[in-house]
Amino acid sequence: MSPSAVAANAHAGESEVNLTNAAIEHRTSGTDAANGTSNITNGVHTKALPKLDASKLTYSFTKSPREIPAPGVTSDDGNSICTDHMVCVPWKSKSGWGTPELKPYGPLNLMPTASCLHYATECFEGMKAYRGFDGKLRLFRPDCNAARMLMSSVRISLPAFEPAELEKLVLALMAVDGPKWLPRERPGTFIYLRPTMIGTQSALGVQAPNEALLYIIATYMPIMDNPVGGMRLHTSPDDMVRAWVGGFGYAKEARERGFGQILWLYGEQGYCTEAGASNFFVVWKDKESGKTQVVTAPLDDRLILDGVTRRSALQLIRERLSDEVEVVERKYTINEVMEASNEGRLVECFASGTAYFVMPISLIHHRGQDLPFPMGKAGEGGEVTLKVKGWLKDIMYGNEQHPWGVVVPEEQ
Amino acid sequence: MSPSAVAANAHAGESEVNLTNAAIEHRTSGTDAANGTSNITNGVHTKALPKLDASKLTYSFTKSPREIPAPGVTSDDGNSICTDHMVCVPWKSKSGWGTPELKPYGPLNLMPTASCLHYATECFEGMKAYRGFDGKLRLFRPDCNAARMLMSSVRISLPAFEPAELEKLVLALMAVDGPKWLPRERPGTFIYLRPTMIGTQSALGVQAPNEALLYIIATYMPIMDNPVGGMRLHTSPDDMVRAWVGGFGYAKEARERGFGQILWLYGEQGYCTEAGASNFFVVWKDKESGKTQVVTAPLDDRLILDGVTRRSALQLIRERLSDEVEVVERKYTINEVMEASNEGRLVECFASGTAYFVMPISLIHHRGQDLPFPMGKAGEGGEVTLKVKGWLKDIMYGNEQHPWGVVVPEEQ
Repeated sequence: MSPSAVAANAHAGESEVNLTNAAIEHRTSGTDAANGTSNITNGVHTKALPKLDASKLTYSFTKSPREIPAPGVTSDDGNSICTDHMVCVPWKSKSGWGTPELKPYGPLNLMPTASCLHYATECFEGMKAYRGFDGKLRLFRPDCNAARMLMSSVRISLPAFEPAELEKLVLALMAVDGPKWLPRERPGTFIYLRPTMIGTQSALGVQAPNEALLYIIATYMPIMDNPVGGMRLHTSPDDMVRAWVGGFGYAKEARERGFGQILWLYGEQGYCTEAGASNFFVVWKDKESGKTQVVTAPLDDRLILDGVTRRSALQLIRERLSDEVEVVERKYTINEVMEASNEGRLVECFASGTAYFVMPISLIHHRGQDLPFPMGKAGEGGEVTLKVKGWLKDIMYGNEQHPWGVVVPEEQ
Repeated sequence: MSPSAVAANAHAGESEVNLTNAAIEHRTSGTDAANGTSNITNGVHTKALPKLDASKLTYSFTKSPREIPAPGVTSDDGNSICTDHMVCVPWKSKSGWGTPELKPYGPLNLMPTASCLHYATECFEGMKAYRGFDGKLRLFRPDCNAARMLMSSVRISLPAFEPAELEKLVLALMAVDGPKWLPRERPGTFIYLRPTMIGTQSALGVQAPNEALLYIIATYMPIMDNPVGGMRLHTSPDDMVRAWVGGFGYAKEARERGFGQILWLYGEQGYCTEAGASNFFVVWKDKESGKTQVVTAPLDDRLILDGVTRRSALQLIRERLSDEVEVVERKYTINEVMEASNEGRLVECFASGTAYFVMPISLIHHRGQDLPFPMGKAGEGGEVTLKVKGWLKDIMYGNEQHPWGVVVPEEQ
């Protein structure tokens, strides 16, 4: 504190406040989150605005239904194949959430000044619907995706909403498009769901948008969890930030050299964070105790995604493998992985995420060196990897009845 | 290098290459940049694809021209007011740049899967057109904006183009909309131009888009360089990254407390970087030499924007004030600014950018303390601030004929 610095004046700051945390807590707490607006303007409480309300959903069905692609076909000349319908809900700061509409899938009309086209005022969730071997259609822990979508949205100053309403809207879309696009004759298949929020206000200038659009679409996506021989990772260079400047180009060149994903290292120490957009797990024998450990980066420093598959995998390992394997969430470096490799302590390695599901990893390329990982007897992945994958698959596709598998009430 | 690590195999990496830099250099070098595509697929050179070509511009004029707003009116219920027309140019990786179209301003049709709506595959430039006191319409150094737009675009894997062609398209839009929207009866006014590039391919999945849209729009924007009493800045908290998580909310709360912008500090040392989205300058007497210095953050660590106004201000100070003032581009901390304040060495302070032009700063609030800055005799800004502002204004509005002022060949 400097002698000549003038004391903060009354207007500008009676007290030091962490404005950000206060703002996020304010917007996500209690009724404000449900209202989708703070309802406080210049300290004056205004009347409550309409909340996101799935019970108001209107239905307008397509007059030109498309044919579903043959099994295994997931794109059309490189473009995503979406189902016949989508759900859209507009929001305005002045009037709150509008009426949710289920309507034919088609283009959005956005003004060239829309804030999402300039300032990345946008966020999304990725989740899947699964056609079970029992004929039922399920979502996997949709409450987790809805809750995370709310966090993403308010963090970038997009509107808040009641997560349970988003979950209902996702179910409603699948209730309509599920029977046709994930037919009962194709058990064991899935479709990808993408709830998205974009800032639509047509005003240039970096500011919290006063208008937004929530929409939900469903597309096909290839099965990616079973590459022949396991996935190979290439570590990121020292100076690159994940998923931004140069990220695309780097990943593309890595793919052309035969690597499935980048293993993103963080900081000078080279902390292991994520593999592509998936969470990353190493199984090794602990240096000190000799115990088998499943090690993955922690959530508390907010460096990595709080993956639903990650969370579910860890919970199942803790519940079902606690006699054999210890779950460790901590920061760990690529050098520790190399050391375990050198000392013969590496057991296996996998990545998890909605797109890649549970993906065995066979090799990491780091600074000119290849670190191989055992891929199990059948070459399809290590023991822990395959157990986790099997358990999750059973829940998703109805071989095991489990609260995480939420059945879609399909229209017949 | 670990003994057990297998040597990199032939497929995966004969040599260690900085993939990113190689990719950027490749895409921006020579003919590739002009072609807007690498023209190399799996090592096979393909035929050259159409380049961005302003000479092919087609014109389709609006049938419902709008009235221009009254002088000083810059928005319509919070929304941007755009001119009658815009320029759009589509790009596809397979077919290169399409025909540029000047057409009525209106909504864009984007598929809900368009990559810009999910992965922020988007970039823009901000520049202005100025109605001179001599009646002529000018752009200010449009070549700088076009060159920077190219850098932004290829860095996020959007297509390359010949910057001179973008410059011509901006001139073409202003040649059509300038006479009406910046009328000769309103000398000393400006309009804001926003060249924008977005990834439009309708394919979910993080990848370089195969389709993109370049568009140019023009809007009104308020005059922001002359706040009564100068602009007040609030420093950013320790843990916040500029313009991302929480950035909007924090800036909003700061504005509600009477601060015009956030002064973004970087790292534990608290390096001064930018004020809002503007470059930031302190004028002080140097601690050692006693000389008057204009100090601003350097470009070499890529932390700050290479602002056209910043670059121009520094060049003019070097050319015209070298006897009195020394220009210093270096890293400096908020503590150095506080120390200069304590020791009575602070002379003045300003921010520069396209939106805020040259903006005098009267106060910085940092961790509970106010640091006041002298605002000159008339209270409108310090001596250096006002000189820089005057020189730039003279060039922009034609009081001084200068190569930086590029005259738009208006249609009559």
